[in-house]
Amino acid sequence: MIYETIRQLAKELGNLDRCLDKGAAHAEALKFDTTVLLNSRLAPDQYPLVRQVQAACDAAKFGAARLAGRQPPVHPDTETTLPELKARIAAVQDYLGSFSAADFAGGAERTVGINWMPGKGILGVAYLNELAVPNFYFHLTTAYSILRHNGVPVGKVDFIGNLPLFDI
Amino acid sequence: MIYETIRQLAKELGNLDRCLDKGAAHAEALKFDTTVLLNSRLAPDQYPLVRQVQAACDAAKFGAARLAGRQPPVHPDTETTLPELKARIAAVQDYLGSFSAADFAGGAERTVGINWMPGKGILGVAYLNELAVPNFYFHLTTAYSILRHNGVPVGKVDFIGNLPLFDI
Repeated sequence: MIYETIRQLAKELGNLDRCLDKGAAHAEALKFDTTVLLNSRLAPDQYPLVRQVQAACDAAKFGAARLAGRQPPVHPDTETTLPELKARIAAVQDYLGSFSAADFAGGAERTVGINWMPGKGILGVAYLNELAVPNFYFHLTTAYSILRHNGVPVGKVDFIGNLPLFDI
Repeated sequence: MIYETIRQLAKELGNLDRCLDKGAAHAEALKFDTTVLLNSRLAPDQYPLVRQVQAACDAAKFGAARLAGRQPPVHPDTETTLPELKARIAAVQDYLGSFSAADFAGGAERTVGINWMPGKGILGVAYLNELAVPNFYFHLTTAYSILRHNGVPVGKVDFIGNLPLFDI
């Protein structure tokens, strides 16, 4: 189930990438620079879009790495343009794609350290369910909402993406 | 893991309830009616706060019911006040609390029908990961963002809530 969850986060990053493309098309149609979108936010003390995307990428990357007991690659959050941000998403999708189900064996019972609270840990299953996944969707949805609030024509279908449906 | 996920959704509904309380306190301090918040939205063609909360409740309720093969209780979306909305959250939390881990045995392999696409189904594990959970967090985060956008002092800690940390 950890593997399925990590695969889902990678899929959602692809959905986000397509939402950003819709943002770029909207900017081009209205003749404004995409950096206006990247620097937009919903509240003055909130991360702008660029930082929301970086944070969603980090939540997914750290989620996979910590549940597999690996050291994740470093991304210094230096992206300032849409192509750079899309490259960051692609890099994290590639990283998530490097894991197999076997890499997460025992991950639910693993103790995960909390990097902003040295000396504190959390069980893998709680780390995934109560921290990594909510944190990921928090930043993903906020990125989506910033686009939507700025008039980009994104909808629920863009957020959910394709589903593996079958006839019953 | 299904049970852990459903428990997490119930916990997040509690976090949402406390964010709504912060909204009520903000409305009282600024002397405006809480229904202004309930009818706020981030884009003109988006659900207002009241409907975001109802949709988050439904995503959690249907998620648990379908993975356990049960018929969920009906909630007709008639809430128009904050106390009514808080009662809806409490009712869904109670419903989620009625499930045990054993109720979800075989749930990952269960075929779940898609109610807006008659004749189509999805495997339980994909229903949970790719539809129920993202849909839940989508509406939960949007509810949070509407509050934040309107100046309610909510932060990431309110969204994540308490974590079962221990000393390491």
